Amino acid sequence: MWTADYREIEQTRVEVEGAVGVRIRWLIDESRGAPNFALREFEVDPGGHTPYHSHPWEHEVFILAGRGASVDAAGRHPVGPGSVVYVAPGEEHNFINDGDEILRFLCIIPHHD
Amino acid sequence: MWTADYREIEQTRVEVEGAVGVRIRWLIDESRGAPNFALREFEVDPGGHTPYHSHPWEHEVFILAGRGASVDAAGRHPVGPGSVVYVAPGEEHNFINDGDEILRFLCIIPHHD
Repeated sequence: MWTADYREIEQTRVEVEGAVGVRIRWLIDESRGAPNFALREFEVDPGGHTPYHSHPWEHEVFILAGRGASVDAAGRHPVGPGSVVYVAPGEEHNFINDGDEILRFLCIIPHHD
Repeated sequence: MWTADYREIEQTRVEVEGAVGVRIRWLIDESRGAPNFALREFEVDPGGHTPYHSHPWEHEVFILAGRGASVDAAGRHPVGPGSVVYVAPGEEHNFINDGDEILRFLCIIPHHD
């Protein structure tokens, strides 16, 4: 068993194209020995967003703080603390912060190449 | 993409032996189409605890609210809001609420038989 406070874990800026004001912490991943999936924490600044894209793996998301929207081809779905979002493999999506505080969420993905 | 507020999702009492004052919501699971892992939310009442046990799959845990401890063979590790806990496959463990409010956490597990 390993425990930590998430704030102690290194945070890095997400530099991929289409990401604006996004930071990530890899809370639990393969480096910790996790065999199947990774738990990450994201912060998105007001006015920021993750890239609008798709990939062959799913997202399971839980919103911790802030206000924003999860976006897909059908449009914007408002999210706030306690929102749960499932993004299926292959679905185009992103997360935007249209509020005035940091949007903070957990996002779990399977290990992949 | 599917979104919901976690409070809208059915909550059931955990009836397994060794569980005291524990409730669960399966936020995202195979019924939603998730191919690899399930995101669950637990609530443990003050004085309550999950069963002390082990199983061949891992836990990835994030504490949302309350105070308590994650327990393994080495002893008690205090947890509170923002704590991250990794339980490796095969490790004995449980979660206890030794605080005075509900202990609430997310726990992700791989699909298994």
